[in-house]
Amino acid sequence: MKKIAVLLSGCGVFDGSEIHEAVLSLLAIAKAGASYQCVAPDIAQMHVINHAAGQEANESRNVLVESARIARGEIKATTELDVNEFDGLVIPGGFGAAKNLCDFAIKGADAQLSPLVAEFIGQFIAAKKVVGFICISPMMMPLLYGAGVKGTIGTDADTAAAFNAMGGEHQSAKVDDVVVDLEHKVVSTPAYMLAGNIVEVHNSIEKLVAKVLELA
Amino acid sequence: MKKIAVLLSGCGVFDGSEIHEAVLSLLAIAKAGASYQCVAPDIAQMHVINHAAGQEANESRNVLVESARIARGEIKATTELDVNEFDGLVIPGGFGAAKNLCDFAIKGADAQLSPLVAEFIGQFIAAKKVVGFICISPMMMPLLYGAGVKGTIGTDADTAAAFNAMGGEHQSAKVDDVVVDLEHKVVSTPAYMLAGNIVEVHNSIEKLVAKVLELA
Repeated sequence: MKKIAVLLSGCGVFDGSEIHEAVLSLLAIAKAGASYQCVAPDIAQMHVINHAAGQEANESRNVLVESARIARGEIKATTELDVNEFDGLVIPGGFGAAKNLCDFAIKGADAQLSPLVAEFIGQFIAAKKVVGFICISPMMMPLLYGAGVKGTIGTDADTAAAFNAMGGEHQSAKVDDVVVDLEHKVVSTPAYMLAGNIVEVHNSIEKLVAKVLELA
Repeated sequence: MKKIAVLLSGCGVFDGSEIHEAVLSLLAIAKAGASYQCVAPDIAQMHVINHAAGQEANESRNVLVESARIARGEIKATTELDVNEFDGLVIPGGFGAAKNLCDFAIKGADAQLSPLVAEFIGQFIAAKKVVGFICISPMMMPLLYGAGVKGTIGTDADTAAAFNAMGGEHQSAKVDDVVVDLEHKVVSTPAYMLAGNIVEVHNSIEKLVAKVLELA
């Protein structure tokens, strides 16, 4: 049975992992006969958004602790996971990927990875293991793989331009297209960057996970 | 297009809605060609559990505000929803259903409903609209429908005994069985009360939603 790590970035689209994308990643992995392990960096969130009001709240929360909600408590810190035991990695979207895993939401094309995240994903890359990026999380690809890596965030012109400014080669894609860069062993799909509903997200992620497992 | 309200109780299995059950309810409703609207009571959570440590945290959170994370911000308070616009209601499980919507987790068979929740669900019952209960949320059925209502929480002997002590008629069920009480127009399924994995939960909830839509 193939084992896939799922890197979370909190719990909620505006300050953490997009919850639908995260749960549908777990569902797609399990339905395909593989197993998953959720993992998250033990770091503070950039901030906390009240998702009902759409405003910043005067609170602080931890990425690992909040991600554990999606994982039903079954989660490991990035520093606790033995990457050797896994065949690949999937990274759901949500602003947490651009606020906590890296700082693209603030810095744009000058973004940097959180050090723990760079170290964690770097182990998968060094071992030539497949990584699947969903929604906004592909913005980390140029930072991780360097010039020439191919990925998609859908069709948003400004975000695609930033992807290219960071050294990537952006590929326009429809909501459930999966862009594959075989040289770098990476896969990406737009999901909620383009999806109008949860069914489109489900299809997008099922296709991404199928390709990740094929390359794992 | 049929419209289904989904009543949430927070965001996380140990102090709110079980996230997988909530998301898979939304997916099943949308896949079946119906639409959903998330709704939650604007009340304080009973408490906050750190889901990574499995311990109570010294924090306070609001059920509506945390539920909004699952709803991507698209949520209404129970007092804001016009029940006349909806064809039915689905209530995912998680301890939030037994800690925030009612107090079964603390009081057992002496449980009472949160007043806002009793008022909200009461409108669906008065209008003879179908309600689907998932996982532990069926423990609210005897409080809502009175003596003789038929439902399931799976096979747990103590919980089933409490259901009967509260006036219900518990029906043992397998993980993806759906128990239907046509007289009261209620449907229930065990989901994570019995499920060993997310695929079983998906199947359980797809079957429940199909029956809810059939009766809606």
